[in-house]
Amino acid sequence: MTAKISFASDYVTGAHPQILQRLLETNLEPLPGYGADKYSAAAAAKIRAACSNDALDVFFLMGGTQANAVIIGTLLAPYQGVVAADSGHINVHEAGAVEYTGHKVLPLPQHEGKIEAAALARYLADFYADANHEHMVFPGLVYISHPTEYGTLYSKAELAALSEVCRRYKIPLFLDGARLIYGLASRSADLGLPDIAALCDVFYIGGTKAGTLCGEAVVMRPELTPPGFVTLTKQRGAMLAKGRLLGVQFDALFSDGLYQEIGRHAIAMAELLRQTLREAGCRFLLESPTNQQFIVMPNDKLAELQRHVDVSFWEKVDDAHTAIRLATCWSTRAEDIAALRQYL
Amino acid sequence: MTAKISFASDYVTGAHPQILQRLLETNLEPLPGYGADKYSAAAAAKIRAACSNDALDVFFLMGGTQANAVIIGTLLAPYQGVVAADSGHINVHEAGAVEYTGHKVLPLPQHEGKIEAAALARYLADFYADANHEHMVFPGLVYISHPTEYGTLYSKAELAALSEVCRRYKIPLFLDGARLIYGLASRSADLGLPDIAALCDVFYIGGTKAGTLCGEAVVMRPELTPPGFVTLTKQRGAMLAKGRLLGVQFDALFSDGLYQEIGRHAIAMAELLRQTLREAGCRFLLESPTNQQFIVMPNDKLAELQRHVDVSFWEKVDDAHTAIRLATCWSTRAEDIAALRQYL
Amino acid sequence: MTAKISFASDYVTGAHPQILQRLLETNLEPLPGYGADKYSAAAAAKIRAACSNDALDVFFLMGGTQANAVIIGTLLAPYQGVVAADSGHINVHEAGAVEYTGHKVLPLPQHEGKIEAAALARYLADFYADANHEHMVFPGLVYISHPTEYGTLYSKAELAALSEVCRRYKIPLFLDGARLIYGLASRSADLGLPDIAALCDVFYIGGTKAGTLCGEAVVMRPELTPPGFVTLTKQRGAMLAKGRLLGVQFDALFSDGLYQEIGRHAIAMAELLRQTLREAGCRFLLESPTNQQFIVMPNDKLAELQRHVDVSFWEKVDDAHTAIRLATCWSTRAEDIAALRQYL
Amino acid sequence: MTAKISFASDYVTGAHPQILQRLLETNLEPLPGYGADKYSAAAAAKIRAACSNDALDVFFLMGGTQANAVIIGTLLAPYQGVVAADSGHINVHEAGAVEYTGHKVLPLPQHEGKIEAAALARYLADFYADANHEHMVFPGLVYISHPTEYGTLYSKAELAALSEVCRRYKIPLFLDGARLIYGLASRSADLGLPDIAALCDVFYIGGTKAGTLCGEAVVMRPELTPPGFVTLTKQRGAMLAKGRLLGVQFDALFSDGLYQEIGRHAIAMAELLRQTLREAGCRFLLESPTNQQFIVMPNDKLAELQRHVDVSFWEKVDDAHTAIRLATCWSTRAEDIAALRQYL
Repeated sequence: MTAKISFASDYVTGAHPQILQRLLETNLEPLPGYGADKYSAAAAAKIRAACSNDALDVFFLMGGTQANAVIIGTLLAPYQGVVAADSGHINVHEAGAVEYTGHKVLPLPQHEGKIEAAALARYLADFYADANHEHMVFPGLVYISHPTEYGTLYSKAELAALSEVCRRYKIPLFLDGARLIYGLASRSADLGLPDIAALCDVFYIGGTKAGTLCGEAVVMRPELTPPGFVTLTKQRGAMLAKGRLLGVQFDALFSDGLYQEIGRHAIAMAELLRQTLREAGCRFLLESPTNQQFIVMPNDKLAELQRHVDVSFWEKVDDAHTAIRLATCWSTRAEDIAALRQYL
Repeated sequence: MTAKISFASDYVTGAHPQILQRLLETNLEPLPGYGADKYSAAAAAKIRAACSNDALDVFFLMGGTQANAVIIGTLLAPYQGVVAADSGHINVHEAGAVEYTGHKVLPLPQHEGKIEAAALARYLADFYADANHEHMVFPGLVYISHPTEYGTLYSKAELAALSEVCRRYKIPLFLDGARLIYGLASRSADLGLPDIAALCDVFYIGGTKAGTLCGEAVVMRPELTPPGFVTLTKQRGAMLAKGRLLGVQFDALFSDGLYQEIGRHAIAMAELLRQTLREAGCRFLLESPTNQQFIVMPNDKLAELQRHVDVSFWEKVDDAHTAIRLATCWSTRAEDIAALRQYL
Repeated sequence: MTAKISFASDYVTGAHPQILQRLLETNLEPLPGYGADKYSAAAAAKIRAACSNDALDVFFLMGGTQANAVIIGTLLAPYQGVVAADSGHINVHEAGAVEYTGHKVLPLPQHEGKIEAAALARYLADFYADANHEHMVFPGLVYISHPTEYGTLYSKAELAALSEVCRRYKIPLFLDGARLIYGLASRSADLGLPDIAALCDVFYIGGTKAGTLCGEAVVMRPELTPPGFVTLTKQRGAMLAKGRLLGVQFDALFSDGLYQEIGRHAIAMAELLRQTLREAGCRFLLESPTNQQFIVMPNDKLAELQRHVDVSFWEKVDDAHTAIRLATCWSTRAEDIAALRQYL
Repeated sequence: MTAKISFASDYVTGAHPQILQRLLETNLEPLPGYGADKYSAAAAAKIRAACSNDALDVFFLMGGTQANAVIIGTLLAPYQGVVAADSGHINVHEAGAVEYTGHKVLPLPQHEGKIEAAALARYLADFYADANHEHMVFPGLVYISHPTEYGTLYSKAELAALSEVCRRYKIPLFLDGARLIYGLASRSADLGLPDIAALCDVFYIGGTKAGTLCGEAVVMRPELTPPGFVTLTKQRGAMLAKGRLLGVQFDALFSDGLYQEIGRHAIAMAELLRQTLREAGCRFLLESPTNQQFIVMPNDKLAELQRHVDVSFWEKVDDAHTAIRLATCWSTRAEDIAALRQYL
């Protein structure tokens, strides 16, 4: 029996073969634990270079929700919360991980997954003008995702405007880059890693959705890194004994142009997918320039499609229609898309 | 120098004299601590009687935010959050006390401070229909305030409808009654304490804003009371050594018709206040049938008024206007309102 | 029926009459809420004067467990814990309130309730010498109680030695003064409030056990006070709407020599009690120079005594004997002790 | 340059080659995320079979501290703490991860890392006999490690006695099996997996220290599994998107006798190591029948040794001596031990 074709997510297959290969090659070397190994150091150095900033702190964590919870939970003072789009992953799909750390998510209205600098500025001005703000949760961090949960991207101008508001109020700007690879590789992108490193105060470069087995690389301005950060990651169950698992994978991901190659491939496949869906007459939920594509289908057609192809439930549109997500990644093949075409 | 007249809140003065008197009379009696005294027991019995239900659990806590945090934090399972109007006190003005207990506030749109049964039902149906709801915070409690933060009231039909939805989904309904006294005494009220005790699963009867020095009486269906509740209140810093302070005050409040009398007086004063404001041509922010009245004033007039009268900032309406709140309580006098009239 | 005589605790009666009187006199004054009233300000000023240090921050909280949890929970960084005697109140009888804030109590062996500077120094030296200390909870605060849970006192030399170790390691020293009044008034005392204010970094002056209805006055070096402290007290349910209740009481307690008078009286009664117990041939658990006295009784004699007198269970000594505590306070009368004599 | 020989821990090398091989073979299969893949299901089934109990729940988490925090934090009621040896990993070397979940560790004295049933029974009897126990943290779980942090083992009689006490008090018994593989393979072992599954209520089978890249398999009596457990693991950052990483590894570990083979090899190497150390005249800190061996060395000799061999600091014995740990694992070779011999 062949496995069903899957566009369910960008984490349906394992690791890119070059990454697995490096795990194999380094497997027998005795290495210190808890991230003190040489591969973690090498990976951090390569990431700093890719960000054009040698001074940045780089840490490796295991997954996106964990990264969000550790970063937000340790950067906020206890009287502060994190501002986010109401559609932000931390506000909807992380099971209350931020609140579990004792902090509130302060929602702003979203537009295709993004928040606007003007809306943020208005919120902050109103907050400090409120005579009762000492009884309210203070904004202590601004969270954005790029690409957003809808696959959309901030332009350089938009990110610069957000960054300017944040710096005016001395509030760090945090970018969730679980899918950053596809934001960088998209044809619509005008933001590179050095731009992001310059405009944000902390962000992470997703590995899990970019071709590693697990892992996210957190990049932080060193003056932000909380005292005792190593202890804090241990305390929150976020420290791997065999830290090499993350170090070796990110070292491979940032060697020999692999990160760019994976991004390029997945975006090329996403473009083919978009074109295929369009040709099949699909109705798009919105325009996404990255590796996630969202279409609206009649429920009966969807049920038929799902007999052959794995896709992701996105949201109920009305009683007869459902929005679904299709994603590409390093392992997506043109023939999978061709096969999909025949089931549409 | 005379103190300025104050309509700033319903907690600007101390305790009703009959309550203070009882503290004086019982002062020398040696009593067991931590709420095990006979006055706490007597107060609980009187509250059960007022609710027409002898089986209810009654506990005394010190203040409203503390009561909300202890109730919500101990009734929710750790994967659950509390549904509330986005304008709910717990969502806005309690400094993130719910999130500090590790739980999310799940906001629904408010209409004059209230949530609607239909909106709640839709939210719950959508939640359980969502294929990804295991990655989301589960609704585990519904919070309403009555009167609301805007002074408005649920009708019996509205509360019954909310209660019905909650029971259908087996989610307890929690009513924040910090100002319940004014909801019961309002001419618009069609809900009595027995109705509330029957339709809600847990609620509290505010003391602080009803004429005690401090204290809220929590009323709970006994099957809801979490195991170890006494220990939990100690753990959260919510247990008084001299529990008599709460017991004696609530015993006095629920003796000799005092609770009704304070409610009637404050509502009569609120009606006089409303009439006075209307006669002075004030613009009302909304119609409130309880002891809080909200008006919109030009900023310059407000500044002038505040030289003579204490009022509460409510919200910025536009660059030239501000909404303020005026509140009455047991100690409000007709002559204070007459004096206010001349400053308007 | 007369109430049983009670030596069960120092919080069996209400407030000292002079304190109640001031609540009565100020009851009708409209005052701002949340501790912004003039009586809270006056009380803070008098406490600063009593500490001979005008620069100290003073805050009022409602009870001892709450004060411990708010202070420890907001002064510690999240990777730190609080060092305490294993018999310390926070480690035994506060229902895990410190752990509820997310922090560990790091126990040191006690000697009559006290920790020794040498043992503290050894613990700290070992901690930092440990190659694995990044996987351990860092000591971030040292907690002592004075008088201790056993009624014993630190000498000035002992406190100075602890203070010196703490300052060497830059760890704040926190003194739980729930019963500080009796430590100051004891004939054995060689520590005054100014000494304590100079040697400790944060401490509180108990009100509840010193003759107020409730309340503890927290005294803190201002550079320690965490940003957002007002918001943090609200968040943790530790802020009273009618803050006047604490302000007026502490203002009265620190006026007209009342604090000294209450201390003197309770200590005189404790001396009479000790002499009476000794004359009755009681066996003392240990020598306590303050208002708590501990004796060991055969279980059958204790059962008989408790028919007439309320005392406190302290600990099981063996199958046939129990240690009990008897406490004096502002309301203890010589005739109560005389009556006790006859039941022994 | 050759890497230094390392006995620093049992996680210095990567994964056992058979495990890596399976990751490679399954890498391209599209699989559902979050642990819903078929390999996770197969691994769970094999673990149930190895425990001789088809009814058990099996979950996969990423590491030991995470497993301890998730299990303890979700099984305890909020007024409960976890009883453990004072030397227990959760009490010493997990950075306060249990306290971060809001719960206290209730320490009992250890004997070679173990707690005794009699001591546990005495503690529980005293707790419930204490008149003040409502102000104390209730024991809600008993934690043991097997092998302990000192490499020692509970006998079947000892574990049965602990289990009996726990069941009498209806307190679940939790066994931390991070190194369970070596406890099962030891010549001293009289406890098999089915015994442990029968006597404990929840335990985990370590992967990280047994030859996987990461992962621990939690085994739980199904009536204990908290509602919403999947959501709770997400909330605590403990859910992998590519859950296959854990499923495939544990499936391989429990196939073809690999688990037994790895255990046997590491124990054989540990015996060779022990013999070698003994022949070299080393002083043992204690007798360990498992893969960790502890010796005491003069500091100068240790410094010399560490130029050639990686070992682990264990504890300072006195000013001139240090205890160190040497560990074996799947990748330890006889020639490494021979090489060590010459440096001693």
